[in-house]
Amino acid sequence: MAEFIRFKEEDLIGYTINFMSRLGVPPEDGRIVGNVLVEADIRGVDSHGLIRLSSYYGSRLRKKYMDPCTPLKTIKETDNTILMDGGNGLGQVAGYKAMEKCIEKAEKSNLAVATVRHSNHYGIAAYYAMMALESDMIGISLTNSQPLTAPAHGKKAMLGTNPICMAAPSDRQYPYVLDMATSVVPIGRIKVFEKKGEKIPMGWGIDDDGKITDDPTQIRSGGPGALMPLGGTDNMRGYKGYGLALLVDILCGALSGAGTLTDVGFPHEARVSNVGHFFMAIKIDAFRPIIDFKKQIDYMIEALKDSPKAEGQDRIYIAGEIEFEKAAYNRKHGVPLLDKVVEEIRDNGNKIGAPFDIEPVG
Amino acid sequence: MAEFIRFKEEDLIGYTINFMSRLGVPPEDGRIVGNVLVEADIRGVDSHGLIRLSSYYGSRLRKKYMDPCTPLKTIKETDNTILMDGGNGLGQVAGYKAMEKCIEKAEKSNLAVATVRHSNHYGIAAYYAMMALESDMIGISLTNSQPLTAPAHGKKAMLGTNPICMAAPSDRQYPYVLDMATSVVPIGRIKVFEKKGEKIPMGWGIDDDGKITDDPTQIRSGGPGALMPLGGTDNMRGYKGYGLALLVDILCGALSGAGTLTDVGFPHEARVSNVGHFFMAIKIDAFRPIIDFKKQIDYMIEALKDSPKAEGQDRIYIAGEIEFEKAAYNRKHGVPLLDKVVEEIRDNGNKIGAPFDIEPVG
Repeated sequence: MAEFIRFKEEDLIGYTINFMSRLGVPPEDGRIVGNVLVEADIRGVDSHGLIRLSSYYGSRLRKKYMDPCTPLKTIKETDNTILMDGGNGLGQVAGYKAMEKCIEKAEKSNLAVATVRHSNHYGIAAYYAMMALESDMIGISLTNSQPLTAPAHGKKAMLGTNPICMAAPSDRQYPYVLDMATSVVPIGRIKVFEKKGEKIPMGWGIDDDGKITDDPTQIRSGGPGALMPLGGTDNMRGYKGYGLALLVDILCGALSGAGTLTDVGFPHEARVSNVGHFFMAIKIDAFRPIIDFKKQIDYMIEALKDSPKAEGQDRIYIAGEIEFEKAAYNRKHGVPLLDKVVEEIRDNGNKIGAPFDIEPVG
Repeated sequence: MAEFIRFKEEDLIGYTINFMSRLGVPPEDGRIVGNVLVEADIRGVDSHGLIRLSSYYGSRLRKKYMDPCTPLKTIKETDNTILMDGGNGLGQVAGYKAMEKCIEKAEKSNLAVATVRHSNHYGIAAYYAMMALESDMIGISLTNSQPLTAPAHGKKAMLGTNPICMAAPSDRQYPYVLDMATSVVPIGRIKVFEKKGEKIPMGWGIDDDGKITDDPTQIRSGGPGALMPLGGTDNMRGYKGYGLALLVDILCGALSGAGTLTDVGFPHEARVSNVGHFFMAIKIDAFRPIIDFKKQIDYMIEALKDSPKAEGQDRIYIAGEIEFEKAAYNRKHGVPLLDKVVEEIRDNGNKIGAPFDIEPVG
C-alpha cells in the first residue's frame, strides 16, 4: 500500500477553497490559503501543507477562534511602510496581502516594510518572500509563533520557532531561498522521533529541569520541556540562535504591536493568537542592474556547489535547492499527500459538507 | 604583573588619531577609527579593538594596501537607498558615513538601506547598528569578510564569518544589541585554545579533509581547515548557519557589487579586499509610537530574564547585555588593554613617529 497519494495541484487548491468556504471563508481568501498550503506540499515541506487544513486551520475556524473573513485593516501607512491589523483572521490572507502591498510600495519607493499584528499562523514563510522574486526584488518574511523554544540558560519555552526567510533572484540557477526556524528543529521533528520510538540527538531540546535530553517524550508543545535555539548549548553558541529568535520577535511582535513571547497564543487555545509578521521587499536595481545581481547569485551558487566536498559528502546544497527540486518533480507527477492526511481531510470534509471527492493522479 | 593596563577613552582615541595620521589618515577619519576600535575595547570585544590598530589596519596602511584617505563615493542614491564605493579605504570611515546617510534618509523616509562596496574590515558591526538607537530607530549592520567558514558538506573556507547585527532601543533596560558571527566561533577563538594548548570542542571547525576536529592547529586562517557555520553538523542544522552566512554575503556583496565568497581578500594580502557592507535603519514610529515600542522591549527583556533557569544556570542574558555591563565598568575605571597589545602599539608607534606616551589610569 502506498504511503502517499498524488493529486493535481489545482484540484487540491480547489478543494481547499470548497473546504474553507464551508467554514465561512470567502472563496478568494480560500484560494490564497490553498495556494500557500499546497505550495508547501509541492516543495516537500509537508509539515506545513494540507496536513494542517482540518487539524489546525479548520479546527480553529470551526471553534470560532478565528475570523473566517479576515477583516484586514490598514492602521498606518506611508510610501514605503504599512502596519496592518489581521483582525484575528487567516494568517495566509494577511500575509499575502501585506507582502503584495510591500512589493507595490517597493516598485515605487525601492524598499518597503509591512508589519502585521493580530494575525494567525501563516504557513511557510518562504511563500511570501518568494513573491518578491517575480518583481526582481529580494524578499524577506518573518513571523513569530507560539512559545516552544527556551532562551539560552532558561528552561521554559519563551520564544517561538520564529523563522527567518529571505529569497533572492538568480538567472540560470534556482533562486536562493532560506527558510529556517531559529530553533535547532521544529517541534514536528521531535514528534517524528517519538512516533518511531527513537531517541533524539542531544542538543535539540531540554526537559522540564532544563537538562538536555534525548527522550522525545520529554519535549512537547506547551510543556513539558522546550526546544533549544539554533546552536544548542553555550559551547556551540546556542545563545546566537536565541538572539535570532528574539530578533524575529522584535521585528514581528514589538514593531507591529502583536503579541510577543508567551503572549502569542497556541492554535488550540481559544484566546486570540495575536501572531505578528514582518515583510520586506528590496528593489535590486536601486543598487545594481538586476542582471548583474542575478549573475552574481549564479556565480556564488556555482562556486559553492563546485567547492571541495568534506569526506563522505558528495554534494553541497544552496538554501531552497532541495525544495525547488522536489517542486519540479511534484509539479510534473502530482502533489503527494500522506494516506493519513487524505483520510483526515476526508473525515473532516464529510463532517462539514465538503466531501473530498477529487481523483488521484495516475 | 597586571595582564592589562587601563587608559582613558579619550586618550586612546587621541592616540589613534595621531597614529593614523602618521600613515596619511586625515584626523577626522582617524577619530572615526578610534571611536570604533576603542568602543570595542570598552565593550569587552577586545578581539576587534586596538589589538588591530597596528597589526591589521596599520600594517595594511604601511604597505599601501589601503587608501588612507578613504575616497568614499556615492554611486547611486535615492530618497531611501544609497550605494557607496569605499575606494579601498578604511572600513570604519565608510561604515560610519554610510550609516549616517542611512539614518538621515530614514528620518525623512521611514526606512533606508545603504550598501558599500570596495571597502575593508570595519571593526565591530554593533558600532553602526547602535548609531540608530539615538534616533529611536532599529539599526541593522552586516558585513562580509575574508573566507574562513566552510559551507555545510564542504571542506574549503568559502564564506566569511559574516556577522549579523541588529540594535533595538529600549526604555529602562539596556537596548537589544545582537552582534554575532554566523560561524560557530570566530577564528580568534580557535587561536586562544591553540595558545593554551587545549583542544577545541567538536563542531567548531574541520580539518583539511573536512572532518570535524578538536585540534586547533588544524584550523587556520587561509587553511588548513575551516570554521563550521553556526549549528555545526547536519544533525545540529549547521546548514542554517551556512544559509545565514550566505544571506549576509548576498546583501553585502551581491547587492553592492563588492566581492563575495573567496573574492573577498584577506587583510594581509596586497590585493584589494573589496569587502561589502549593508546597513539599514527603520524609524519605529512609522509603525508604532516609540514609547510603546520601547516599553514592549523592556517587557520582553524582563520576562526573558525572569523566566525559569535551567539546572546549573543562575542568569538569562539578553543580546548585548554583557557588553553594556562591561562598557559601564570600563567607562568608569578606564579602558583595559592587554600588556602585549600596549607593547605592540608602543613598538609600532615608535617606528612611525607616533610614540605611545599616554598615561595609564590610576
